[in-house]
Amino acid sequence: MKTHLECIPCLVRQALDAARMVSADPSVHERVMREVLRWISDMDLGSSPPVLAQRIHRRLREVTGVEDPYREAKDRQNRTALSLLPRYRTAIAAASDPLALAVQLAVAANLIDMGAKTGWNEADVPWELGRAAHKPVSGDLDALRAAVANAGHILYLTDNAGEIVFDRLLIEQLPRDRVTAAVRGAPAINDATREDARAAGLDELVEVIDNGSDAPGTLLRDCSPEFQRRFAEADLILAKGQGNYESLAGEPGNIFFLFRVKCPVTAAMTGRPVGTHVVVRSCAETAVSASGAGTVT
Amino acid sequence: MKTHLECIPCLVRQALDAARMVSADPSVHERVMREVLRWISDMDLGSSPPVLAQRIHRRLREVTGVEDPYREAKDRQNRTALSLLPRYRTAIAAASDPLALAVQLAVAANLIDMGAKTGWNEADVPWELGRAAHKPVSGDLDALRAAVANAGHILYLTDNAGEIVFDRLLIEQLPRDRVTAAVRGAPAINDATREDARAAGLDELVEVIDNGSDAPGTLLRDCSPEFQRRFAEADLILAKGQGNYESLAGEPGNIFFLFRVKCPVTAAMTGRPVGTHVVVRSCAETAVSASGAGTVT
Repeated sequence: MKTHLECIPCLVRQALDAARMVSADPSVHERVMREVLRWISDMDLGSSPPVLAQRIHRRLREVTGVEDPYREAKDRQNRTALSLLPRYRTAIAAASDPLALAVQLAVAANLIDMGAKTGWNEADVPWELGRAAHKPVSGDLDALRAAVANAGHILYLTDNAGEIVFDRLLIEQLPRDRVTAAVRGAPAINDATREDARAAGLDELVEVIDNGSDAPGTLLRDCSPEFQRRFAEADLILAKGQGNYESLAGEPGNIFFLFRVKCPVTAAMTGRPVGTHVVVRSCAETAVSASGAGTVT
Repeated sequence: MKTHLECIPCLVRQALDAARMVSADPSVHERVMREVLRWISDMDLGSSPPVLAQRIHRRLREVTGVEDPYREAKDRQNRTALSLLPRYRTAIAAASDPLALAVQLAVAANLIDMGAKTGWNEADVPWELGRAAHKPVSGDLDALRAAVANAGHILYLTDNAGEIVFDRLLIEQLPRDRVTAAVRGAPAINDATREDARAAGLDELVEVIDNGSDAPGTLLRDCSPEFQRRFAEADLILAKGQGNYESLAGEPGNIFFLFRVKCPVTAAMTGRPVGTHVVVRSCAETAVSASGAGTVT
């Protein structure tokens, strides 16, 4: 998707939040803010919001000299999620529709996102997840079910640390031998990298690859040639999170986006209110039948 | 007050809201946004938020060629407020403490502000005012009462259209022969100008002057020499609204600010939560006793 004018105040706010997260020095905050404002004033609005977010977070790492400023937060998020894992694994096993519950939980866990909102409260995670167990996702779950059944190879794009533990629970409900999980190639906000996949035990379950990019989304042209090949060869792509939606909506491919709607722009695009947990299919693939057997070209 | 880094995303959002309010042309919105981002990237954060807001709204008037883009909205706000006037005048007359109720209502009416918030709902005004009648202001009302009793000359700085009708109700409770009311010198958002003072009937009650400036606040150096003289000679200044607070907090003078706290920055400055209706005294005048008889130098 392109960057809408509504995204701009939000990107400016995210830059300030991030600067304060990674540095306690007010002069760093001010310098980064002035740079970001200049970038946005010149930016190509045809590119998606993660393009600018990538630039902001690169710059913050450069200014602070810290390679992974969110590492501690990500470790904490993984630990919290892992502590909840046994309970939810049991719930899924006992559910009348284990896949449906696993999808609900994996989408609900998309709230563990340090990019989208100021004052996001980590302490709410267990409570929010508790509610989510009873909150059905909006979208065509049966189309997703059929697509999973028919796909030769499934590429699962993870989003955030912590959330990735719940991605594992969902992947446990998929045909594992046909699934590859992908993480970011380098730190980007609290997005999951290989370290988080290991913390979640995902690497013991399925093949894990990284996309070679440090964008908080999947900017295909910025990804490694190997990742691009895997993306093109997948029969089905499950893309978690709003960053993946922002960067891949409109890309060709049999893509199902699973995320929590976090802003008015994606609310308008999906036709669902902010806060909705959605499973939506890529617009570029609407011609493919609901059986979901489309092979990506 | 200076512009805090938190003000920046909010100023960017206000610029977008304003551009959409005054023009239906997306290319105008984009052009103005890019300009505003460049301005903020270079701005002196030592100046107050109304300095930038003034520049934004000047530019919008220039780009659209419309001298007073909010005129229609202001007329509507005045009509709504005037329709409520008889009911509240009766309530004030019947109140055990008419001045206290008049202050409560005048501060509550400060919600009629098209600068502070996206999605502000004009239809809420009667309802919100109904609630406000029972919502005491936070601050030293007795100090204000004493200051009014002791002041030789009172300068009352109005803020928004619509709200100015409720300023009239408060001014009816003051010693009218010692009061001068001031409006903006030219259009700035939905701030009140001479036209609104006439619509509210304020000019039949007290002397009305304008400040010679088109800032949505009171930037003293931008005001006319005549206004500056009147400001310096006043024994007591009652300043309505957050824009006047942002621009005058810290200025010397026996100033009482009456407004609704609309953002985290002014919440931190006043020590009151967002949404609080406050009467706060200028910090620069804290040395003056609560009798409020200080003469401004």
